[in-house]
Amino acid sequence: MSDHSAEIISVGTELLLGEILNTNAQFLAQELARLGIAHYYQTVVGDNILRLQKAVAIGCERSRLLIFTGGLGPTPDDLTTEALADFFQVPLIERAEVLAEISEKFARRGRQMSPSNRKQALFPVGAEVLPNPTGSAPGMIWQPRPGLILMTFPGVPSEMKVMWQQTAVPYLRSQGWGAAIIYSRTLRFWGIAESTLAEKVADQLALQNPTVAPYAGKGEVRLRISAKAPTEAEALQIIAPVEQQIQAIAGLDYYGSDDDSLASVVGCLLKQAGQTVAVAESCTGGGLGQFLTSIAGSSAYFRGGIISYDNQIKIDLLGVSPDILLQHGAVSEPVAQQMAVGAREQLNATWGLSITGVAGPDGGTETKPVGLVYVGIAGPNGVESHRHQFGESRGRDSIRWLSLCAVLDTLRRKLLQPS
Amino acid sequence: MSDHSAEIISVGTELLLGEILNTNAQFLAQELARLGIAHYYQTVVGDNILRLQKAVAIGCERSRLLIFTGGLGPTPDDLTTEALADFFQVPLIERAEVLAEISEKFARRGRQMSPSNRKQALFPVGAEVLPNPTGSAPGMIWQPRPGLILMTFPGVPSEMKVMWQQTAVPYLRSQGWGAAIIYSRTLRFWGIAESTLAEKVADQLALQNPTVAPYAGKGEVRLRISAKAPTEAEALQIIAPVEQQIQAIAGLDYYGSDDDSLASVVGCLLKQAGQTVAVAESCTGGGLGQFLTSIAGSSAYFRGGIISYDNQIKIDLLGVSPDILLQHGAVSEPVAQQMAVGAREQLNATWGLSITGVAGPDGGTETKPVGLVYVGIAGPNGVESHRHQFGESRGRDSIRWLSLCAVLDTLRRKLLQPS
Repeated sequence: MSDHSAEIISVGTELLLGEILNTNAQFLAQELARLGIAHYYQTVVGDNILRLQKAVAIGCERSRLLIFTGGLGPTPDDLTTEALADFFQVPLIERAEVLAEISEKFARRGRQMSPSNRKQALFPVGAEVLPNPTGSAPGMIWQPRPGLILMTFPGVPSEMKVMWQQTAVPYLRSQGWGAAIIYSRTLRFWGIAESTLAEKVADQLALQNPTVAPYAGKGEVRLRISAKAPTEAEALQIIAPVEQQIQAIAGLDYYGSDDDSLASVVGCLLKQAGQTVAVAESCTGGGLGQFLTSIAGSSAYFRGGIISYDNQIKIDLLGVSPDILLQHGAVSEPVAQQMAVGAREQLNATWGLSITGVAGPDGGTETKPVGLVYVGIAGPNGVESHRHQFGESRGRDSIRWLSLCAVLDTLRRKLLQPS
Repeated sequence: MSDHSAEIISVGTELLLGEILNTNAQFLAQELARLGIAHYYQTVVGDNILRLQKAVAIGCERSRLLIFTGGLGPTPDDLTTEALADFFQVPLIERAEVLAEISEKFARRGRQMSPSNRKQALFPVGAEVLPNPTGSAPGMIWQPRPGLILMTFPGVPSEMKVMWQQTAVPYLRSQGWGAAIIYSRTLRFWGIAESTLAEKVADQLALQNPTVAPYAGKGEVRLRISAKAPTEAEALQIIAPVEQQIQAIAGLDYYGSDDDSLASVVGCLLKQAGQTVAVAESCTGGGLGQFLTSIAGSSAYFRGGIISYDNQIKIDLLGVSPDILLQHGAVSEPVAQQMAVGAREQLNATWGLSITGVAGPDGGTETKPVGLVYVGIAGPNGVESHRHQFGESRGRDSIRWLSLCAVLDTLRRKLLQPS
């Protein structure tokens, strides 16, 4: 007997070789949890028609909704659609409207559609096309027999996510899946350790509905508050008072929720205040500017920046004093301050932010080890700088990320509590 | 009939809820590939004894080595050992030496062992203990019947990895597993569609040893060449001629192998030529600088840059003409060219690279839609620019990424084929 549950089947030899992480399975698992759809198994199988069909045979014995990712591309080893049609003994037909759409997408990018892309227009008779607005390979929604739904998605995560949200979720709801829902809110914190926060909110961590669970990673701590209820509105009502308690306990260490980032939160605060920001970056090489401009509409408050990787650029474009550079070195309090002031003045912004540090793996010394970073912040009331020691063992990427978050967090606190 | 292959069974409800990424499966998959152990399936199942046993039943039908991660902790929902013993109808016994070791580990950390930890000393009769030098939960190696090996590991990645390397790998080698190895090289391509490349290298895609498989994502195409041989050196000998053929066929569209990126490849070429680069970024907001400086040692060739997000910055710091801006708009050929020249001159570099475009989601017009990007490149022989239309549907992040890769690829081709 089949459970009324979903199963994720990830197709791709690259997964079996460990070349990529199965982030698609995580995304879909989160989505199924959010929709309150039971989900007991995940399977990974390679680009092999027989083994894929064996996985299908097992999956449709124990689950009623099989969600496939991968194997929809134009090459000979992309064989998910073919394998499914053959397994359920249903012929493939070429869908003219899909073929037209694929060839049009190629044309729009000024490229010729190759003959192998034709294959992506083949679907089993009776399947619905699941449109792929951002890529070339559409998926399908297919009920090959009563009580069994198959959904196929390409392996490219960004394409799969759009297709899931735009088409698959509304379809599932229309079929009565996801009646009770689990709804979650994630609260985000910066500048506090996971264990410290967990002790402060021990009462909330003990709750049953909503549940509160701590996570940590990439320098931030998160608390996920999850409620089970018949509707999203009711779940939110269960979550709201707990969320308020936690925010009150955490104070300024709480910075945002769900999809908020330090860049989006700082952007909102700047917009509200009618203020602007400019950056001067050394070891982050442009990462702070990139993070700030990852937010659509950031041109309202982001002026621009100077990437002063070379010391001469610090002197020429930011007005850092050659004597100070010589005396204190590029990674120092006074240079961070002069960089921040230079960014503010040269780019005519309310705030100037600067970062100078040793990101490693080389370049560390006894007094200035890898992981030592100074951030500067210049504003209407003057300039200040802060020293951070992120530790030698973290690695270049992580040191750079923590550096740019540190200076954004400093600006965030200043904007929330003007001195 | 069982294949002589391995299967990874990841146990944990947190995986089914999407709370964590299954990095353990990726690590083990890479290890199995490295050892040349065939591996056709991965399964994820929750902390539920019946469903776990169903997964075991399926696994031992189709594989001869089942590798479990997770479910070895002290709490009631950790039940991997119990489920396996019950499935194979073998009683559990408490292993005094394991109990002593666990309690000693607690004592060393100044803690009292809790009664629930006692459970971690229970093993099926006949199983070998797989020591866990860095954590409290040991695993096991067990042959419950001839020709079937089970291995259990805790879910904590760092503990699992040490146990795998110190005990599991030597054991497998002693049992004749992993005699041959599979070694892979990944070739990377930019500026060619997956389908076009696949058609050009159709002969290579049909090979058996090595195999050649295409992948695509984030704007690039990759070909993975995998060879099976007794040693890494022999595998490389099998790969080398095919790699050379493919490189010859692809010409300049091939840009690097394995861990190479456009930033690392361009960096190498600049270093060899004793040249430097500076950037002027608008819609990428610093992303090009960040990408170039993600490479350790990039200070040898990266001078810095100007993030000219606001038009006034383009005028003030890059010397873009206000008339040209008014006449053509910021997203235009002449502005891209003036930005590139400005970066080159202001930062005193051999090459100036520029990017100006509409990253979206807003800001597109009839004549300048979202996805339209101009990149500029100024060098010793003058300046040029290129128009790219990445399509409105791709999304902001992707348009920004493709833009910075496009300009790096242009510089790469110039460095390889000086005019």
